[in-house]
Amino acid sequence: MRLSRYYLPILKENPKEAEIVSHRLMLRTGMIRQQSQGIYSWLPLGKRVLDKVNRIIREEQDRSGAIELLMPTLQSAELWQESGRYDAYGKEMLRIKDRQDRPMLYGPTNEEMITDIFRSTVKSYKSLPLNLYHIQLKFRDEIRPRFGTMRSREFLMKDAYSFDLTREGAEHSYNKMFTAYLRTFARMGLRAIPMRADTGPIGGNLSHEFIILADTGESEVFCHRDFVNFDIPAEDTDFDDVGGLKKIFDQWTSVYAATSEMHDEAAFDAIPEGERLSARGIEVGHIFYFGTKYSEAMGAKVQGPDGKEHIVHMGSYGIGPTRLVPAIIEASHDENGIIWPASVAPFDVVVINMKAGDEACDKACEEIYAALTRAGKDVLYDDTDDRAGQKFATADLIGVPTQIIVGPRSIAQGEVEVKDRKTGARDTMTVEAAINRVNG
Amino acid sequence: MRLSRYYLPILKENPKEAEIVSHRLMLRTGMIRQQSQGIYSWLPLGKRVLDKVNRIIREEQDRSGAIELLMPTLQSAELWQESGRYDAYGKEMLRIKDRQDRPMLYGPTNEEMITDIFRSTVKSYKSLPLNLYHIQLKFRDEIRPRFGTMRSREFLMKDAYSFDLTREGAEHSYNKMFTAYLRTFARMGLRAIPMRADTGPIGGNLSHEFIILADTGESEVFCHRDFVNFDIPAEDTDFDDVGGLKKIFDQWTSVYAATSEMHDEAAFDAIPEGERLSARGIEVGHIFYFGTKYSEAMGAKVQGPDGKEHIVHMGSYGIGPTRLVPAIIEASHDENGIIWPASVAPFDVVVINMKAGDEACDKACEEIYAALTRAGKDVLYDDTDDRAGQKFATADLIGVPTQIIVGPRSIAQGEVEVKDRKTGARDTMTVEAAINRVNG
Repeated sequence: MRLSRYYLPILKENPKEAEIVSHRLMLRTGMIRQQSQGIYSWLPLGKRVLDKVNRIIREEQDRSGAIELLMPTLQSAELWQESGRYDAYGKEMLRIKDRQDRPMLYGPTNEEMITDIFRSTVKSYKSLPLNLYHIQLKFRDEIRPRFGTMRSREFLMKDAYSFDLTREGAEHSYNKMFTAYLRTFARMGLRAIPMRADTGPIGGNLSHEFIILADTGESEVFCHRDFVNFDIPAEDTDFDDVGGLKKIFDQWTSVYAATSEMHDEAAFDAIPEGERLSARGIEVGHIFYFGTKYSEAMGAKVQGPDGKEHIVHMGSYGIGPTRLVPAIIEASHDENGIIWPASVAPFDVVVINMKAGDEACDKACEEIYAALTRAGKDVLYDDTDDRAGQKFATADLIGVPTQIIVGPRSIAQGEVEVKDRKTGARDTMTVEAAINRVNG
Repeated sequence: MRLSRYYLPILKENPKEAEIVSHRLMLRTGMIRQQSQGIYSWLPLGKRVLDKVNRIIREEQDRSGAIELLMPTLQSAELWQESGRYDAYGKEMLRIKDRQDRPMLYGPTNEEMITDIFRSTVKSYKSLPLNLYHIQLKFRDEIRPRFGTMRSREFLMKDAYSFDLTREGAEHSYNKMFTAYLRTFARMGLRAIPMRADTGPIGGNLSHEFIILADTGESEVFCHRDFVNFDIPAEDTDFDDVGGLKKIFDQWTSVYAATSEMHDEAAFDAIPEGERLSARGIEVGHIFYFGTKYSEAMGAKVQGPDGKEHIVHMGSYGIGPTRLVPAIIEASHDENGIIWPASVAPFDVVVINMKAGDEACDKACEEIYAALTRAGKDVLYDDTDDRAGQKFATADLIGVPTQIIVGPRSIAQGEVEVKDRKTGARDTMTVEAAINRVNG
């Protein structure tokens, strides 16, 4: 992508309304723009990151055996009356009347709808286990939306729903998602700690929140330092291996970890002082096993191997992509801007032409740009006539992992500079070596 | 994907509520499910097709130089009061009050919001031309939604918006989209004919609808038979070549084509009788040049090279992916089911195990499944214990382009049958040859 043809509305000043660093940086880099209170557009730079986050989520959901579908945003109120949540949900639910005066709502979550789909299409235990997910917009009319897309009213959620014949089956489904979540967050450069959580309006009695430690987190969290050293499940994890996944679950729940709602001071104090970690955290995922709460109320049952009808056991599993993006920034930035982990960076590399219009600089830049694009890299080429200093500042601000800097003096020697955004290390090398470094 | 672990709720009976073939087939194959009147879930099989349609749309938008972003679904009423469309839009607009009693709406289109984004971030002609697009849900509260996702209330739209300094620039932007649309539809196996169209509530004086001929189309259309032979612009079309794109536009608008609203009987009758085509059509895209209608009302201007302020010229360009999927089915099916063009097929190939549990059959199927998956193909493996006849019927119904049929008698000779869904041709060959045929 040539910057001269791109849309990258960088702000020169720090936006005053932003209280936390991710919100400030997302506005400054032109990743997002507020359209109404708690409602945002994802501008092109932000959209690229969001797409990469969603791709990782999808890959890990698919790997675990979950199957993607897409449910609509608007739901009929009737479904929610059936489950009993229509009246219980409160003012966070955006209630709507259509032109026929039928009561509708903008879905804050999809337990009712997926249960309705299940009961009308699945009849036999042979179709189980089943886990269906979608990545779809939700709306929750928060009284005080804040921190940009960290707590917005219209937001994207990946929500998965599992169906099993038995409680044991449902626990294995829970462990599949537990494992997939550990991998998902790790691939984004995050260490998320699963913590026993309150189930809130979703219901049920087994639930974990996945929390990233960050000073700006909304929740107070307490855990054992051991979490930092636990291994992330490997790419070739066998999701059918009931015992294997149980072992992963057991390890990751073997030491103390709790949010303030579930905090047990005595248990925490029993941990040797040097191993206690008390910090603030950001919730990036939440999983629930809630048994037959919805399937019972809505009649979701299958014929079992015994020929009898069985109410199915369900769980639901959420990740907020539009919240993950700022969470990654909270975990990875410095005073010059964002430092993207390679897996979610909007571009893999930025080629900086220090003197656009100079024949040798232009030629080298075009060559690098073409070679890296051909190799399948996402390349941003700063071909504008801005001053070199401004180009460096922009490249640092938007946090692309690698910068290739092409200036008239070094290119006369056939050389360019390669800068690593994270370490700040700069190396001088030939054009060919620079291309190989990025492709490496 | 193993069918035994997939979610494919095939209906045995033809659904009574479906009036047209695409609606019937999308329900029967379990591609979609109605959740409320005119509001659908895309079940896994449908979601796969929708994703492929969206990918083609994105590739062609990107090729033309348009840049993707993502605007939200809910908009504030204020923006629409500024443009004057809030009162004009009528009952199709879903109006909503949030918990603070602020008037909102579920966006039926995004001219106002994109103009607001533009005016607050673009200040100079140097940032032009600019074309921003998104693929986002829209809601239009139709009084009579029908034909499944062909005319639904909640639907997906790709809408692009162009900004130019001059009318001439805007015409080139229009020709870029015109060309991209011809390529987009052709890649989905469709011949779409651009027809001069009424601009309706969008406004402006230059507009084309892209119409596919189909007996079930809602519009009556009249055109010259020459359209059938016009060349589709090549993949390496230079979108910066103003004259080249003008030539494409001129050819594709050189002979008569009009919907009934714009029909000129005298002009049509002037065409020799054998070259007249009078038919029914489905609108799959609509493009508009509307000059300064929104930029003037909302103050979207840039500083020109003359140092003065200029109101920008705009266009908007829509494609409906959730309507394209049924349109493709209308254009490509037979009495046994859907016949997907390869580019949008949910799976590239289905491997049918005629006798699951038979050692030789299982072994050959696993080998084919693994080899094709490794080669990056989307493979559905029917490993269920259904009868062979039912497996054949399902494979034909869901319309996967190639079927590889593995039966105990032929596999004893080391052979399988390969069936082409479209022609019905069956060839017997070795396992290796079958794999090569699909990878070919």
